[in-house]
Amino acid sequence: MADSINYLLQSIGFIRSELKSRSEAPRQNYEGAPHAWVELDAKFLNAFEGISVDEEIILISWLHKSRREVLKVHPRGRIDLPEMGVFATRSPDRPNPLGLHRVKVLEIRENKIKVAPLEVIDGTPIVDIKPILKKSDDR
Amino acid sequence: MADSINYLLQSIGFIRSELKSRSEAPRQNYEGAPHAWVELDAKFLNAFEGISVDEEIILISWLHKSRREVLKVHPRGRIDLPEMGVFATRSPDRPNPLGLHRVKVLEIRENKIKVAPLEVIDGTPIVDIKPILKKSDDR
Repeated sequence: MADSINYLLQSIGFIRSELKSRSEAPRQNYEGAPHAWVELDAKFLNAFEGISVDEEIILISWLHKSRREVLKVHPRGRIDLPEMGVFATRSPDRPNPLGLHRVKVLEIRENKIKVAPLEVIDGTPIVDIKPILKKSDDR
Repeated sequence: MADSINYLLQSIGFIRSELKSRSEAPRQNYEGAPHAWVELDAKFLNAFEGISVDEEIILISWLHKSRREVLKVHPRGRIDLPEMGVFATRSPDRPNPLGLHRVKVLEIRENKIKVAPLEVIDGTPIVDIKPILKKSDDR
């Protein structure tokens, strides 16, 4: 089998949020997460054309405060629950700390996009944005 | 605003598929994609513990044959349709060529996981695996 290979991701923008630390952030977006702003890097603004207010989109974040060496966790940090592999959980601690966030677009102002609900903290890099495919993402 | 920053992704495994080129691959997994095998790097096997046959999971791939400089595309390659920003499409050509694939686990043999349907080509790196969160991914 091929050895592990590295690839270079680039931020396309950053999150501005009232959430300033992991301890303030809800574990999932449906657990009371606030709205936040995506500040797109101006050079990627053309790539955003075609997305509208009220649409749902998927943000992929780089959870930059995560611990990448962690392979097993207690689900939801509850030590009374048996440890599971991180790929069986949505833990931010994982080999590649990518976050998947389904959010609604509330407002678009030039390169700033207001979305909700979003559980990531202020300063989190965004690396991709995708539309929802009803037939594939919502089976 | 902060400038674009780079991050290092690592492959956690690779896809083995009968699909050998982009021209053979369906555009979406619900358009007749075959099964495929994820060959997990042995050092990440512990991270997979807790995932079972018949479960649906999300694979995140690195679409290594993509063109990262593309910001606008004709949806589905149809030049009769107006160009859209790549973030409004699921085009593999995009600044960070991450693929999102919702698949069913059909079989698990040590570090090899048979999944379907999967539209990516043989040799595609996998960078993350996540469980489905009904309340968040399927709103």
